[in-house]
Amino acid sequence: MKQVTHGGDVYAWGEREILDFSASLNPLGMPPEVAQAAVKGVAASDRYPDPQCRALRQAIAEVEGVSTEQIFCGNGAAELLDRLVLALRPRRAMLLAPTFGEYERSLRANGCKVIFHYLKPEREFDATEDLLRVLRPGLDLLILCNPNNPTGRTIATPLLEQLCRCCQAQNTMLAVDESFLSLTDEAAQTDLRHLLAECPRLVLLRSLTKSYAMPGLRLGYLLCGDPALLEGVALAGQPWGVSVPAQYAGIAAMHRPDWPRLGREAVAPQRRRLTEELRKMGFRVWDSRINYLLFYSAFRTDLQERLLKRDILIRDCSGFPGLGTGYYRIAVRTEEENARLLRALGEVCKEGRG
Amino acid sequence: MKQVTHGGDVYAWGEREILDFSASLNPLGMPPEVAQAAVKGVAASDRYPDPQCRALRQAIAEVEGVSTEQIFCGNGAAELLDRLVLALRPRRAMLLAPTFGEYERSLRANGCKVIFHYLKPEREFDATEDLLRVLRPGLDLLILCNPNNPTGRTIATPLLEQLCRCCQAQNTMLAVDESFLSLTDEAAQTDLRHLLAECPRLVLLRSLTKSYAMPGLRLGYLLCGDPALLEGVALAGQPWGVSVPAQYAGIAAMHRPDWPRLGREAVAPQRRRLTEELRKMGFRVWDSRINYLLFYSAFRTDLQERLLKRDILIRDCSGFPGLGTGYYRIAVRTEEENARLLRALGEVCKEGRG
Repeated sequence: MKQVTHGGDVYAWGEREILDFSASLNPLGMPPEVAQAAVKGVAASDRYPDPQCRALRQAIAEVEGVSTEQIFCGNGAAELLDRLVLALRPRRAMLLAPTFGEYERSLRANGCKVIFHYLKPEREFDATEDLLRVLRPGLDLLILCNPNNPTGRTIATPLLEQLCRCCQAQNTMLAVDESFLSLTDEAAQTDLRHLLAECPRLVLLRSLTKSYAMPGLRLGYLLCGDPALLEGVALAGQPWGVSVPAQYAGIAAMHRPDWPRLGREAVAPQRRRLTEELRKMGFRVWDSRINYLLFYSAFRTDLQERLLKRDILIRDCSGFPGLGTGYYRIAVRTEEENARLLRALGEVCKEGRG
Repeated sequence: MKQVTHGGDVYAWGEREILDFSASLNPLGMPPEVAQAAVKGVAASDRYPDPQCRALRQAIAEVEGVSTEQIFCGNGAAELLDRLVLALRPRRAMLLAPTFGEYERSLRANGCKVIFHYLKPEREFDATEDLLRVLRPGLDLLILCNPNNPTGRTIATPLLEQLCRCCQAQNTMLAVDESFLSLTDEAAQTDLRHLLAECPRLVLLRSLTKSYAMPGLRLGYLLCGDPALLEGVALAGQPWGVSVPAQYAGIAAMHRPDWPRLGREAVAPQRRRLTEELRKMGFRVWDSRINYLLFYSAFRTDLQERLLKRDILIRDCSGFPGLGTGYYRIAVRTEEENARLLRALGEVCKEGRG
């Protein structure tokens, strides 16, 4: 089988029409206004992008209730992560395991030692106060993903606040990747923006990829209260990282602040249904607050290959540090698409071992 | 005056309609097919980009006559430079002066010591065999820009070949930024692709920004014969650096391989005219082979401010290492636009000192 290192690479199968459960996006798709704005952006692409993303940052500032000086925009949250790591040049960084694989890739590319804090399946893969106890001075960076990918679990807000203050006190930078936050049930509650002014060692990474289903356009932003760090992030990459279509699309997205909520409302009943049905089939499913689910199959470890024969792609999570064979992640998509996945999974479960 | 660190930032003046001579693009603009393809790319941006740019690399390979394995695509040549520097982690690098400012920014962001090799105005700012004599083992990276920005001068091909072999022999990586090459009079002759197989320490950076007038879409590519280096470049950044609209646009551009030549043909007579007229006004103008001109004003050092009052933006080159007050770069644009610039310059030259 061809190697797929991340979800969403449906191109590996050429012209085949693949139903992609490996990438987790707002099931409502891209708002039409956003696509229209990106098309206008194409027409304006005979100019360089605004290197300072002035209009886009203004639009984000109004929706986020932060100042434009606290915002830096990037070519997806993934680029912002690379800029942050290069600007900080950490020697020791801590990651939860399992979590999104790009953190480790970025840290190792910059020669940073990576320490994993393993989350326990029997504790729902939740970050707990254990994490507070392992933080030590000399740790340069702690990266959290909230909600965590691929577990779908959120970190309790009081714990996040404690972590933030603990990091601040021992001079550890805390980066919280909130790429999925606006699609999360508790989006409003788990928001850390109120700590930006108090904690200059706090960085929030946000993305429009998932909430506005625009992964192909590449747009994310970073929020931070420390002007010196933002200056470093700006110098850690080219001035023209964010394309004109992405800037236009982002401004239009900020005029549809309801879109993530509409996505959440579409996801919630579908996620319940998927969770129940997967459990009926005998899989272990972690309760998720977001538009994807982690599940474990004790009896069948070739689900990805077998579903691919039915033109359905799911995310094999066996390669995540802290997981192993039998773990899979699926997106919560529309009712009809989810039904197709469940039918295919039902068939696969009945097949003989191949 | 507001600070403009690069050309092309017309956004600094808000809604004002600025005629931009500070960015140097194919004066024919973006081919309509390319814009149409990018629009289709917007419609397909509800998926992640192909992380391997498979179709785009195939299209580039056919036009460039290299193998797909020798190509890595990026979010503009500027992103590729950052990836290359991070992958190489050079301790000592050499740059020509003057040259494009992003090289120094990228090297310093990665903690690299930068050594400048100063080009001499009395030798037309040409790179000469002097450069061969200053290369020493222990130099990790030499970055050349051919044709050089902002001088518009090409490096003689025999010298380039000697430099390449010298770098190869002493284990110095040689990166040649050919972002403007396809718009250069001698495009075919100064091409270094034939050395890729022989010299694994050679990297060529190419861009569609200038030749297809698509700076807002962000697309460049890197050619290299060393698979290990290309692997390092891939790991030096996110997997989804090139947006879907950029990938679609790039494929369409490869179906218009004539576009850069048409641009060259449009530029040549205009460049001659601009050069002559500027000399008549008393400026020193360096003979250029490309779609921009470097000139020096001994008597007037506020040209940028005065032209801005006439809604024309030119590039003030006083900040380039190796240049100083009075140096300016202008794009070669269409006949009508160039005439407007010449009229405005003529007026400015007659004004009293302000």
